[in-house]
Amino acid sequence: MSSPSHLLVNRFKRIVFGSPKRTDQAHHERLGIPIALAVFSADGLSSVAYATEEILLILTAVTAAAAVYSLPIGLAIVALIMIVAASYNQTIRAYPTGGGSYIVSKENLGKLPGLVAGAALLIDYVMTVAVSAAAGIAALVAAIPALQGYEVPLCLAAIWFVAWMNLRGVKESGSIFALPTYGFVLMVFVMLAFGLYRVMTGDWHPHASVLAGFGGGDPAFYEATKGITWFLILRAFASGCTALSGLEAVSNGVQAFKAPEDKNAIKTLSVARTLLFTMFAGITVLAYGFNVIPHDGETVMSLIAAEAFGGRGFLYFLVQAFTTGILLLATNTAYADFPRLSSLIARDGFLPRRFANRGDSLVFHWGIYILAGIASLLIVLFNGSTHHLIPLYAVGVFTAFTLSQTGMVVHWLKEAKAKSESVLKHWWSLSLNALGAFICAVITIVVAVAKFTQGAWIILIVLPLFIGYMLHVHSYYDRFKNKVEALLKEHLTMDDARRVKVILTIGGLTPVIDHAMRVAHRISKDVTAVYVAVEPEIGEKVARKWDKARHSGTELVVVPSPYREVVAPLKEYLEQMHRQEPHTLINLLVPVIVTNEPFDDYLHNGYADQILRELRFSEGIIITEIPFYVNMNPDATKIVIDPAQ
Amino acid sequence: MSSPSHLLVNRFKRIVFGSPKRTDQAHHERLGIPIALAVFSADGLSSVAYATEEILLILTAVTAAAAVYSLPIGLAIVALIMIVAASYNQTIRAYPTGGGSYIVSKENLGKLPGLVAGAALLIDYVMTVAVSAAAGIAALVAAIPALQGYEVPLCLAAIWFVAWMNLRGVKESGSIFALPTYGFVLMVFVMLAFGLYRVMTGDWHPHASVLAGFGGGDPAFYEATKGITWFLILRAFASGCTALSGLEAVSNGVQAFKAPEDKNAIKTLSVARTLLFTMFAGITVLAYGFNVIPHDGETVMSLIAAEAFGGRGFLYFLVQAFTTGILLLATNTAYADFPRLSSLIARDGFLPRRFANRGDSLVFHWGIYILAGIASLLIVLFNGSTHHLIPLYAVGVFTAFTLSQTGMVVHWLKEAKAKSESVLKHWWSLSLNALGAFICAVITIVVAVAKFTQGAWIILIVLPLFIGYMLHVHSYYDRFKNKVEALLKEHLTMDDARRVKVILTIGGLTPVIDHAMRVAHRISKDVTAVYVAVEPEIGEKVARKWDKARHSGTELVVVPSPYREVVAPLKEYLEQMHRQEPHTLINLLVPVIVTNEPFDDYLHNGYADQILRELRFSEGIIITEIPFYVNMNPDATKIVIDPAQ
Repeated sequence: MSSPSHLLVNRFKRIVFGSPKRTDQAHHERLGIPIALAVFSADGLSSVAYATEEILLILTAVTAAAAVYSLPIGLAIVALIMIVAASYNQTIRAYPTGGGSYIVSKENLGKLPGLVAGAALLIDYVMTVAVSAAAGIAALVAAIPALQGYEVPLCLAAIWFVAWMNLRGVKESGSIFALPTYGFVLMVFVMLAFGLYRVMTGDWHPHASVLAGFGGGDPAFYEATKGITWFLILRAFASGCTALSGLEAVSNGVQAFKAPEDKNAIKTLSVARTLLFTMFAGITVLAYGFNVIPHDGETVMSLIAAEAFGGRGFLYFLVQAFTTGILLLATNTAYADFPRLSSLIARDGFLPRRFANRGDSLVFHWGIYILAGIASLLIVLFNGSTHHLIPLYAVGVFTAFTLSQTGMVVHWLKEAKAKSESVLKHWWSLSLNALGAFICAVITIVVAVAKFTQGAWIILIVLPLFIGYMLHVHSYYDRFKNKVEALLKEHLTMDDARRVKVILTIGGLTPVIDHAMRVAHRISKDVTAVYVAVEPEIGEKVARKWDKARHSGTELVVVPSPYREVVAPLKEYLEQMHRQEPHTLINLLVPVIVTNEPFDDYLHNGYADQILRELRFSEGIIITEIPFYVNMNPDATKIVIDPAQ
Repeated sequence: MSSPSHLLVNRFKRIVFGSPKRTDQAHHERLGIPIALAVFSADGLSSVAYATEEILLILTAVTAAAAVYSLPIGLAIVALIMIVAASYNQTIRAYPTGGGSYIVSKENLGKLPGLVAGAALLIDYVMTVAVSAAAGIAALVAAIPALQGYEVPLCLAAIWFVAWMNLRGVKESGSIFALPTYGFVLMVFVMLAFGLYRVMTGDWHPHASVLAGFGGGDPAFYEATKGITWFLILRAFASGCTALSGLEAVSNGVQAFKAPEDKNAIKTLSVARTLLFTMFAGITVLAYGFNVIPHDGETVMSLIAAEAFGGRGFLYFLVQAFTTGILLLATNTAYADFPRLSSLIARDGFLPRRFANRGDSLVFHWGIYILAGIASLLIVLFNGSTHHLIPLYAVGVFTAFTLSQTGMVVHWLKEAKAKSESVLKHWWSLSLNALGAFICAVITIVVAVAKFTQGAWIILIVLPLFIGYMLHVHSYYDRFKNKVEALLKEHLTMDDARRVKVILTIGGLTPVIDHAMRVAHRISKDVTAVYVAVEPEIGEKVARKWDKARHSGTELVVVPSPYREVVAPLKEYLEQMHRQEPHTLINLLVPVIVTNEPFDDYLHNGYADQILRELRFSEGIIITEIPFYVNMNPDATKIVIDPAQ
């Protein structure tokens, strides 16, 4: 709420802003590396909770021995993490004010690629909520098997709990992020340490030896893994790529860091990247070593933790608790980012203008409802299963990565051109981003093809539809602008109005009407009262009384109503007046009774409501309601009325 | 629609009405006896289609032999018809302008008895629709057994078909009534003639002889009818009393008759009464003689017709068709009477005022929706069965009869007193009405007790609730009137307003705002523009531009918005202004974009909507919307907008 002290009305026709606090400054103190790491990497790090499982699910569906292929796939993904993180370092350097995929793509590649990136990201935020909630609940159910079968309601409860927290206005603060994020990282490393100890003490029992898997020539292994095709391995790799989701968060939020922003952001990204690939690699190796086969109702993380700690004790439950915690935190990130990106796109005219001001609570609420609503729908449609949602997720993530990295390539070329420097000056950044763009493009295609039948086709339909919608909105605003410009060159009826004629509609001669008459006379010296006579006799009576009343200076028009209607004759009368005097603007005053008994409000204003419905926005007519306040209920301090009435 | 030629604006502040046609005269030509009989007795005569069946259903549930008791019960009902019709003759004489139960009870017994009668009648109209539709469809299903099992959807279709006809504005006209009413009467008499012939030719086969039934001393009969108690006979009688429903219609509509109205009405009632008891008596005797036992899926009328005509030929189907026809016509009567009575009660302040003008199409539509809606609900709840609905019906009918007849007794006493005549002068009318009142009162109690467990209890709950609601409405209007009177003695903030301050809210410097500014200047010389600055920089820019623009004569206030909200700071600013200058009335002008593309309307006016929601009816503020019309779609000739937007 704006306090009265803010309302400095400048006599010289403007306000001196004093020292206004910007919203960003007011709500987000600049962050040091430790807190920034928690805030910006929660989403990214949380994906290790399900990435390995997604790989194993594809491989072990054929045979348990195929799990050995998770090792080279994991290695490829680690390499991928290194490359993508390195290319994002370049983005941070180039966009110290924050370079999200939408902005980088739009500025360097043009509007349409920008829209593709923007649409992909908005869809991804929805997927983040759905996938993270599903994975978080999966961790919970693994620890408490009694909850099995209740995954969908639990997911919905989690989604709407976080939505409710956001609606209530819980502000993002670093401290909220710190505990679940560092707790999760710590417990994963403790688990990896315990696991490594077990492995070193001989507790290593994979289904197939690495040697057998990679050319050792074990005939039994070859027999068992006959069904493993290159396509299947690609598919497993595509699933594992979700480990990279959320990696771009640091580059979006550079402005939130303490100075020097870009350097601190790069350091943070470097730590986040290292944590990410270490945890992912460790989990993947342990899953292989402990011969973990994913099955319904238990996550790979849960199986590894149980093996590593030699049972389901306190440490096991800590791992599961922090896993659920960081995943729910990851959904929270999407709730904050979705309205933020929507507002950027809306400012460019590609989403309804009302979304442009993300500070507006109404807009923020709508964003949250849309996000939680669609995520809930996905949870119900896909039965709360993480791995059914992953194919939809990965396409969007890598589409945005590809466009962002490609945009960066163009950025360096433009930069060199603008400064008339040699391209070679940026060769390192340029090659890193080019490599990133190329690899991400390949992966986007791999994911789309490999996962096409498993749900990726949905995104390949929804994404173009969404982009088409954004183009429609933009073209509408363009057409609107042109129409308005054309109108300005034309005759504007209302602008031509020589005068405003004030008409007061009355329903009889009551104190409420007396009051409305007095208000009307303050609005204009020249007021005409109009009464629709449903009963001719009563019309004559009203006209007679009018003469005797103190309103005798005002003209009264009695409009007959042969069919006993009230609003239709009034409408006809005003429309005829507008036809006869098109240059007169009719200001129709409608008396309305306002009480503080909302339940009984329908007992008044039957015709006022109808007049508003029928005449609002009629050509040449503007409507002013004249409320008459009656405090019917002394207990209610404020006069409240349902505006829909 | 009021045509332009009706709009004679009188320069001397009133209109000369010319020769306005009253709605009653315009739509209802005065009726001669033959047509009046059809119009006013359709509802009453149609009840013979199910009254006998209701009696037999109760009796034969014990044993088929008990059907013999239908004869004395029928005789009692015929006597009842004679007495009630005779007392209504007195009502017609006393109320030549139309004496419905509501008016007669209210004028003679007081408000509360009037309300009881009014509420009972309104409920009865609902029951008429439900019962007549159920009976009409039963006649149809009896003739076409393939329709069995579809009674409920058929009833609903019939109810909403008649509702739709009324919504479409089909006017009551005598000719519509004539065919089904006279066709029904004719076919019933043809059926009775055929039936009598069969009886005379020896085709008489009742389950029990009259002699055995009434003291003939047949031991077998006594054995079979052991279960028949006096209470059961009373219950059968109570059911048969529905034969009287609709009998009061003539007395309500005296004004519709050709002069001499009362004499013609009495003649009509006399014919209607004669037809009613003849048909009822005939059907009851034949049902006994043909040993008709009602069973599922076939009506007593259908069974009698099949016996009388010796099969299901053309004449049989004619009887069934006319039965369905007159019963659906009876529902139509309720659609016309329900809004009429509601408007009478609303004028007295016991129902929401918006129902007072029954000529208003909106009111009429609401009446029809309410009537058809509740009737449909009853059909679904009671599974489309006539005899489950009858217990609810009869209580209301006889409550209204009793109050009306008691009111007549008081009327004659008052009349004598007013004219200082001896009461003996009216002894005949007085005793007839007193007899009617007494008998109806007894029957009301009999029906309520005998049918209590079969549904009458519902009415005994609903009726008081409904009366309580009407009293609540009346007391609200009373309290409102007192509050307004008290207010008039007090200080009225808005009446004290020394001036009106015009505030124009602007969302930027666009052509739409330029237009709104020009309109604002025509409304007042003294306009202040207000801009809420979500971004301080943009606020400064708007202020700078304002100076250069042609609006420099107008003050611009830039309201800062530290929390990036738009409407809240505006609201706070206006509320503060109201607190500082309580005697100033703020006229807030809100620019609104109006297009003829309703689907894209949400792309505009995000804040205009919100301003209306938040500030409408705020104390000290009136709102005027300034529409800016943009013809986005040249194909749509008219600019249409969803008023809810």
